Amino acid sequence: MKQGLCFIKSIELDRPSSNDKRADYERLKESLQTDELSLSLDLLKTLPGVLREKDFFLKPVLFHMDGRHILLELFSEQCLGVAIDIGTTNLVASLYDFVTAEKLSVFTIQNPQLSFGVDILSRIHYAMVHNVEELQRALIEGINKLIISVCKDAGVVPENIYAASVCANTVMTHFLLGLEVRYIPVEPYIPVVHCPEIIRAREIDIHINREGLIYIFPNAGSYVGGDIIAGIIATELHRRESTSILIDVGTNAEVVIGNRDWILVGAGAAGPALEGGIISSGMMAEDGAIYRIDIDDRDRSIKYKTIKDTPPRGICGSGVIDLVAELYRTGIIDNRGRIKERTDYIKEKEGHLFIEIADSIGITEREIENFLRSKAAMFTSIYVLVRSIGLSFSDIERIYIAGALGSGVRVEKAQTLGMLPLIDKDRFISVGNSALKGAEMFLMDASLIAEIRDVQSRITYHEMNTDRDFMMLFPSALFIPHAEPEMLS
Amino acid sequence: MKQGLCFIKSIELDRPSSNDKRADYERLKESLQTDELSLSLDLLKTLPGVLREKDFFLKPVLFHMDGRHILLELFSEQCLGVAIDIGTTNLVASLYDFVTAEKLSVFTIQNPQLSFGVDILSRIHYAMVHNVEELQRALIEGINKLIISVCKDAGVVPENIYAASVCANTVMTHFLLGLEVRYIPVEPYIPVVHCPEIIRAREIDIHINREGLIYIFPNAGSYVGGDIIAGIIATELHRRESTSILIDVGTNAEVVIGNRDWILVGAGAAGPALEGGIISSGMMAEDGAIYRIDIDDRDRSIKYKTIKDTPPRGICGSGVIDLVAELYRTGIIDNRGRIKERTDYIKEKEGHLFIEIADSIGITEREIENFLRSKAAMFTSIYVLVRSIGLSFSDIERIYIAGALGSGVRVEKAQTLGMLPLIDKDRFISVGNSALKGAEMFLMDASLIAEIRDVQSRITYHEMNTDRDFMMLFPSALFIPHAEPEMLS
Repeated sequence: MKQGLCFIKSIELDRPSSNDKRADYERLKESLQTDELSLSLDLLKTLPGVLREKDFFLKPVLFHMDGRHILLELFSEQCLGVAIDIGTTNLVASLYDFVTAEKLSVFTIQNPQLSFGVDILSRIHYAMVHNVEELQRALIEGINKLIISVCKDAGVVPENIYAASVCANTVMTHFLLGLEVRYIPVEPYIPVVHCPEIIRAREIDIHINREGLIYIFPNAGSYVGGDIIAGIIATELHRRESTSILIDVGTNAEVVIGNRDWILVGAGAAGPALEGGIISSGMMAEDGAIYRIDIDDRDRSIKYKTIKDTPPRGICGSGVIDLVAELYRTGIIDNRGRIKERTDYIKEKEGHLFIEIADSIGITEREIENFLRSKAAMFTSIYVLVRSIGLSFSDIERIYIAGALGSGVRVEKAQTLGMLPLIDKDRFISVGNSALKGAEMFLMDASLIAEIRDVQSRITYHEMNTDRDFMMLFPSALFIPHAEPEMLS
Repeated sequence: MKQGLCFIKSIELDRPSSNDKRADYERLKESLQTDELSLSLDLLKTLPGVLREKDFFLKPVLFHMDGRHILLELFSEQCLGVAIDIGTTNLVASLYDFVTAEKLSVFTIQNPQLSFGVDILSRIHYAMVHNVEELQRALIEGINKLIISVCKDAGVVPENIYAASVCANTVMTHFLLGLEVRYIPVEPYIPVVHCPEIIRAREIDIHINREGLIYIFPNAGSYVGGDIIAGIIATELHRRESTSILIDVGTNAEVVIGNRDWILVGAGAAGPALEGGIISSGMMAEDGAIYRIDIDDRDRSIKYKTIKDTPPRGICGSGVIDLVAELYRTGIIDNRGRIKERTDYIKEKEGHLFIEIADSIGITEREIENFLRSKAAMFTSIYVLVRSIGLSFSDIERIYIAGALGSGVRVEKAQTLGMLPLIDKDRFISVGNSALKGAEMFLMDASLIAEIRDVQSRITYHEMNTDRDFMMLFPSALFIPHAEPEMLS
């Protein structure tokens, strides 16, 4: 059976007697029958009182990893854990009950660091000019709010959360810990730490139980963060003999290719984000987001669907892909993304042509161009990575689509655009937020630590920014579907 | 070569390059080539700055124990350690340089807890009525003053102390950590913890380097403290095939008997203290203490020597033994300690007979009686312990005399009194402050941890308070030398 990072163990201790004069702590330790046990001085101070108040019957909360056990509480009826994905744009948390192994609730909020800059580079810049503590504080406050929300949702209190499993990209991990970020974005791109592993929540002022511990997923470099490693864990790509690809589209797009023998990550050239930022009408895949768009072949009328059928508020990632693919399919835009045929919903807006899907929601010609840069970057990354190890697309058994595109994307539309390779549709698997999923899996199965470390140590990073093939092939991929369509399959 | 708890290692790290993108911490870790390494988040935060400021040349301070390494500093030219013996009456510290393995200075101060009560029981009572924090604070303040003094003496600063090796009796260890003491003095005498092992100095507000660590000697029960275990380590009694005895006379007298196969500790019936407390003229063995007394057979005149030949301020332990032995030898007192013959230096003082050695320094008849209770307790403890394992005094190869009696005692005088068994004088070895010595040895040789743990686990405790033999034999030992002198050899 899988054992989460924390558990409660009900024990009745032998009572002290003239034949058994063991100290309270050693009595407890021997009763727990654990190899290596530790606890804080604060908790030790409460031991004699609790032990006698509870008449030597305890329900201790234990954290365990690597055969080490850490005592977090002496008597508790509830033991919760939280998995957190710290994205550049959003913070997502899911709450678990370690006893029942149930997921209790999930919550998403915006990363409060957005007020320091939408993209990571501007936040790094801010930290360099001002200080990293300000960004750390904003992030921690956001996480604490998120934890309160996810707890309220489940009708529990943060004090009963004893462990958090956290993944983030390398820069966000550094912000979380208040570590220097100035050396991350400059050659040769050196983070302060790869494997922070475990820290006390109170050390960084995260409000869970005051003895609570936080596990932080390791990174494999400045551009390969813990979120990617968590994503790999979620897909189990690293376990299989056959080669798979994981495409995670968040604020940046990252591509992983690998199998049980090797793992290669390409990143650093995602182009503008597909999530939110790429178009002014862009939004996350939440209520009111247009996620499906079809254009009628004959009258060119637009039909769309919104999430939960609520009035449209914007377009999410899969909606943008649908839109551009349908505009191209019906001949409204050409293979460079330029509008070649006007319809009644194509309007002038601040000197630009604007394709309006619903009240003021739509896309400009310029935004289509940006989108095509993103799709070109993504496809070229995949192509270069696959070719760099002497494979072709037909060798790829599975392609996992995660992140912003994750749940809603219609593969055939993305293929129409030349965003994804032309391989059998069945080989594409939507995995939603793979990073969060990986963090959840580890939260609820501490034995995965060995795999996490193994993946971290096996990752090879392929930098696209400086890759000659990438640079050469990128311009052809700006076309729909591609200037050399044979490269798509 | 022996390796202390801390050391400095000079290293030059590989510089980052496009072929070597390891994070700062992992770069350092691999350069140190240690198995298991950890450091605080505070120290990690300073790593990127220090690394570049020092151009990748570091002199880290490392603490090591059990194959674990803890990074305490990134660049230091000096690395000091302190051994501390926390006695009920006195605090003693000795300062070492980990690099040269030199002892730099030693210092003794009174335990500031004396203001809460001279004996341990009244301090426990105070803690129960008020709170343990007050006693902890007093002790910590004393230790911090002691550390400042020992550093001033050596011309160094406490910030360069990275490790402390501390021993104390069980109650004092609990006071040091702020742990509950109320269950220690009552049946079945249960401490909170036996093996606290390592804590951060700042956790209990000890002012050494802010990353500094404190090792605390384990206890083997309420009446067998870390000071006894340290004393055993100092004498190496636990290593030898032949059986030895260690008599440690502090505020209480404790007797250890053992060899490499077994260790037995008898305590709990020491009677009034020999150190300081037993007589109103009593004092520690420091400048001005009368440590040698001879009485002329013919004219009964008294000759004495003081430490460093300074004017007499009081009488230390060995002086008291000399005095009572000489009073008995010259027939001034009888075998019950009562004055049977008056001399010109025997005076009335507040209704009691007072034997004056120097200006107002001396001993009363009542104090002699108390002393004889202590000597009776000590001898009877030794006798009962030796007999309980089927041995006789002739089987004992060495008797180590430690504590208040340690350095100055004249064995023949103690034998005259029936305080020590009548075995060959060569078998007695003075070991001074054996507890401090043990703490020093571990400070400078981390590999001793295995022996400390082994000794802790092997100790059997023999309670004198409830021992029928002890109770039966004690009255006879109140006589000088003994009501049944054949028991002395």
